[in-house]
Amino acid sequence: MSNLYLIAYDISHRQRHYRVARELEGWGLRVQESVFECWLTAPKLTELRRNLARLIDPRCDLIRYYPLCPKDVPLIRTLGPATRASDVSHYQLG
Amino acid sequence: MSNLYLIAYDISHRQRHYRVARELEGWGLRVQESVFECWLTAPKLTELRRNLARLIDPRCDLIRYYPLCPKDVPLIRTLGPATRASDVSHYQLG
Repeated sequence: MSNLYLIAYDISHRQRHYRVARELEGWGLRVQESVFECWLTAPKLTELRRNLARLIDPRCDLIRYYPLCPKDVPLIRTLGPATRASDVSHYQLG
Repeated sequence: MSNLYLIAYDISHRQRHYRVARELEGWGLRVQESVFECWLTAPKLTELRRNLARLIDPRCDLIRYYPLCPKDVPLIRTLGPATRASDVSHYQLG
């Protein structure tokens, strides 16, 4: 079964930032400039973490992975122009 | 009882970005440029959301609030120069 993960990153180097975003676009929904929401099984999370580890410089780039349990997904709140309506299906439990 | 919340924001206007960060620094731990982790009770979350709503332009600024249930807190993973060791107490359940 897949779980929703929030992946947030701080990458100052423009090219590495671009590569990480491009990789993540194949895995989930970009909800902010440096924040993605991805539905992932445990093996898929491992694969994604390995792929991203190859793209960054761990001395200065930072990526955080937050699991969001199903009970909390409906409690996500936004202020401002939130995710496009077409992404509502994104919140159906994976 | 307080719960851990991840608060992530996209604010292009420098001064509003600064004000939101300064407000959040009074509530929790900055873990990335635009990401904070805050231990909040329900009333405190309401108060914080109201304070931040006053500081942004909801037409173009975006703030997301993610509840992180206690079971998920130990599963947070980072890659790169993560939160300073002195912040380990931050992850003791509030």
